[in-house]
Amino acid sequence: MKTDHPFLQMFGIKTPLIKPGDNIAEIIANSLEKQGLQLQDNDVLVIAESPVATSEHRLVLLDDVRPSEKAVHLAEKYQLDPREMELILQECDEIFGGVPGAALTITRGTLAPNAGIDSSNAPDGYVVLLPKNPQESAAGIRRYIQDRCNCKIGVIIGDSRTQPLRLGCVGIAIGTSGIVPVEDARGTFDLFGKELKITRKAVADNLVSAAQLLMGEAGESVPAVLIRGSPARVVDTDMEMPLFSRDECMYYSNIRKA
Amino acid sequence: MKTDHPFLQMFGIKTPLIKPGDNIAEIIANSLEKQGLQLQDNDVLVIAESPVATSEHRLVLLDDVRPSEKAVHLAEKYQLDPREMELILQECDEIFGGVPGAALTITRGTLAPNAGIDSSNAPDGYVVLLPKNPQESAAGIRRYIQDRCNCKIGVIIGDSRTQPLRLGCVGIAIGTSGIVPVEDARGTFDLFGKELKITRKAVADNLVSAAQLLMGEAGESVPAVLIRGSPARVVDTDMEMPLFSRDECMYYSNIRKA
Repeated sequence: MKTDHPFLQMFGIKTPLIKPGDNIAEIIANSLEKQGLQLQDNDVLVIAESPVATSEHRLVLLDDVRPSEKAVHLAEKYQLDPREMELILQECDEIFGGVPGAALTITRGTLAPNAGIDSSNAPDGYVVLLPKNPQESAAGIRRYIQDRCNCKIGVIIGDSRTQPLRLGCVGIAIGTSGIVPVEDARGTFDLFGKELKITRKAVADNLVSAAQLLMGEAGESVPAVLIRGSPARVVDTDMEMPLFSRDECMYYSNIRKA
Repeated sequence: MKTDHPFLQMFGIKTPLIKPGDNIAEIIANSLEKQGLQLQDNDVLVIAESPVATSEHRLVLLDDVRPSEKAVHLAEKYQLDPREMELILQECDEIFGGVPGAALTITRGTLAPNAGIDSSNAPDGYVVLLPKNPQESAAGIRRYIQDRCNCKIGVIIGDSRTQPLRLGCVGIAIGTSGIVPVEDARGTFDLFGKELKITRKAVADNLVSAAQLLMGEAGESVPAVLIRGSPARVVDTDMEMPLFSRDECMYYSNIRKA
């Protein structure tokens, strides 16, 4: 096989179950060693948000939550547990509407059904909130692993989302560190030499979707994936994830407020 | 490296420029050989929709299009070329609204800005419509390549989409053949042994997003990617792409009609 062709490899990283208070960066680094994988410059680690949140004590026992009147009302409207609805209200920036079983929210700048709160992969009676600041989570994990492995990598905290009118979940990056998460292809040229005008590539989101092929949603204990050979640009800063402006978004401008 | 860990490889396939009337399946098979790649059972080929459409004579010279009154009106509303707006009206099932530069449509069951019509990677003055029936395109390519390479593979026709309130394009499968495009994880169990209730995995969409890491949007001449080691289930039938029901979709039910 010639080497001048694009080539990418992904390695699923199996770990023990992540528990509250665990150092997830250390656990992932240990698991990499155990699997005989040595990190290289420009590698990208994608880590699922749920174990990150668990390690950061973001588990909440539903029985400890006292729903407000507003939460009780909205829980009925969207057919949700009033205690979960209370947490959604506390976590989200905005609620737009929803369907039975899901309130459509913006949470930390990202569209997230039910503010990203999940009862899957949580102990019975508990839910997992999103990491408090996924950007900082990514930065902290990157610092630990770069120091230990002595190389420059990117780290992405990934979550799942449905796309409009599509069946099934795809990946979304909710925090990144050390990579350029969105590449601006404007100013480059197409096959016919015409300048591209509006094309941006959601590199970080695509890396998460790729990683989810190996992660699984259920009890598969592959909370992280090492991606080698991706075109992601590794840079030694924590870049903020840029988001579409609301006015430009063709979905948002057509969404009714609840 | 131990082999009991999930491992996936992707190979970008470089081809000559695809022209109207070309047999794209043959060109891809030739390019695979030239790169020294031999297909194996359960490999998945992701192919960009634009070269597929081009090979199927879906290029339209804008100067040949005479816009209707309705197209002129909507073109003004969405700041589009009236001739492109005419093609959008002819191609789409429905228009919901939009923003300057993009009409939000449903085209062949999928949300597609401007009915998926694109002037990138088309000769000057031309636009490329979506393949007429991406499912059939995928099936035809699969039959040719399976016969020639004597193995069972999956084929996906991929396109790019923005996600709500996100910057940058991710992948979406607009036609699949020979694989299960959406895996239903309901009835499986989480890390704590609780049954998952509503999780479906958009395997085909994730495969396209993964492939787009190597494809590039601009003039990179990597119209196809071979994915080896993915969890996609290869089956010897043409499965229809299932889509979310409109009523269940949390975005759709909150979108105003234009």
